[in-house]
Amino acid sequence: MDQWLQEDERIDYLLSHQLKIIQSPTVFSFSLDAVLLGDFAQVPRHDRATIVDLCAGNGVVGLLLSQKTKSPIIGIELQKRLAGMAERSIQLNGLENQLTMIHGNLNQATNWIKKDSVDVVTCNPPYFINKGTSVKNPNSHLAIARHELHTNLDEVMKETSGLLKMNGKAYFVHRPDRLIEILATMKKHRLAPKKMRLVYPKVGKEANTLLIEGIKDGKDTGFRVLPPLFVYGEDNRYLPEVSEMLYGKND
Amino acid sequence: MDQWLQEDERIDYLLSHQLKIIQSPTVFSFSLDAVLLGDFAQVPRHDRATIVDLCAGNGVVGLLLSQKTKSPIIGIELQKRLAGMAERSIQLNGLENQLTMIHGNLNQATNWIKKDSVDVVTCNPPYFINKGTSVKNPNSHLAIARHELHTNLDEVMKETSGLLKMNGKAYFVHRPDRLIEILATMKKHRLAPKKMRLVYPKVGKEANTLLIEGIKDGKDTGFRVLPPLFVYGEDNRYLPEVSEMLYGKND
Repeated sequence: MDQWLQEDERIDYLLSHQLKIIQSPTVFSFSLDAVLLGDFAQVPRHDRATIVDLCAGNGVVGLLLSQKTKSPIIGIELQKRLAGMAERSIQLNGLENQLTMIHGNLNQATNWIKKDSVDVVTCNPPYFINKGTSVKNPNSHLAIARHELHTNLDEVMKETSGLLKMNGKAYFVHRPDRLIEILATMKKHRLAPKKMRLVYPKVGKEANTLLIEGIKDGKDTGFRVLPPLFVYGEDNRYLPEVSEMLYGKND
Repeated sequence: MDQWLQEDERIDYLLSHQLKIIQSPTVFSFSLDAVLLGDFAQVPRHDRATIVDLCAGNGVVGLLLSQKTKSPIIGIELQKRLAGMAERSIQLNGLENQLTMIHGNLNQATNWIKKDSVDVVTCNPPYFINKGTSVKNPNSHLAIARHELHTNLDEVMKETSGLLKMNGKAYFVHRPDRLIEILATMKKHRLAPKKMRLVYPKVGKEANTLLIEGIKDGKDTGFRVLPPLFVYGEDNRYLPEVSEMLYGKND
């Protein structure tokens, strides 16, 4: 497999070895949050939809979604090195006919994808507001993925909404401490929040992740809070629902 | 006890018989939501604060809070019959020195309570938007408690904020399907959402109740989602946390 890898990269496995993904601890490794997003997002099974994954990183969300749909999935990633890893992972899995990776800025998305044409957009954006004073990872690859250095919540929502067709669906994973801003920004960009799922690391702990669905130009009513998701059991092992997302049913 | 009761009223017990409360199935019986609110609201133990309960109904929230604080608690209830039941429950428990009931409209609250003077406001408001077409309870007592016939979310938040001193705390119980409106209306009236707890009837079910804390003129940051609360176990009996709220520790 070495011809696929650069420097300190390695190949990891998803969904019980059905999928291979190129990772690098010093550049980018996917987080559980991306896996949660891939699980949460609802995509049509057929091949006639268009799906876009913004802030795609090493392409993990698109790879996971490819197991739920036959429709084409386009990832957009700003960082060339990450987009390259994603591209090689797509080839490694023989998914070139379904998955495409674009190296570019999401604010240029409509240069490559027609406005108002997309059925589903997913995005695992940087979580942290860029305050001049905040401590950032000295590794610029990781800092860009985590902090709003090159994009921000408003831009992510604006571009998502611009890509989606009417009644298209947006799925985001983010942090609960920004819920108020997330809801207000979705509304600003015509994404009606419809479903939210809160993720708690353990029973008895505060939520540390949220998953939210918005529908472009959807009605303001009918917001639902789905059953909570707990990640770890008392023994610090993944609980069955999360374990299945990561390793599949038969592991 | 009959001298305390009118018509079809009865005396129920709260917190393992520490508190008695007058109820009437045809007029008003407290709901679990009021008990959840009484548990969620944080009040100082001392006697120097002022606490106000809006939409007080038969006074259940004030009665419960009286077990957590020595400070005076003022209830405001629009319906004369309910305010009367609350008044008699206060006497029945010998709490006249701590609890006061005002029969009146919450939009007149500052006629009785000084503006910007209150430390904590609690409110279990009517949940349902008053659409001309919606099916309402033909019993007007119950319809007023459930539907926004005589007040609404915007007015409740406005009056709450008007009563609270700077950094005073507001606690609401409401329905998750109105979360987006709740957060936006809190912001409009200078109540910064700080903590939210979602209540799920059972493991695996969607949330049907939300509890939220706001701080008047608080900062926009630091919003937290507390551990989820489950009401019933698989055997349809109250789970321990809820059972303790209703019946106390030693039942």
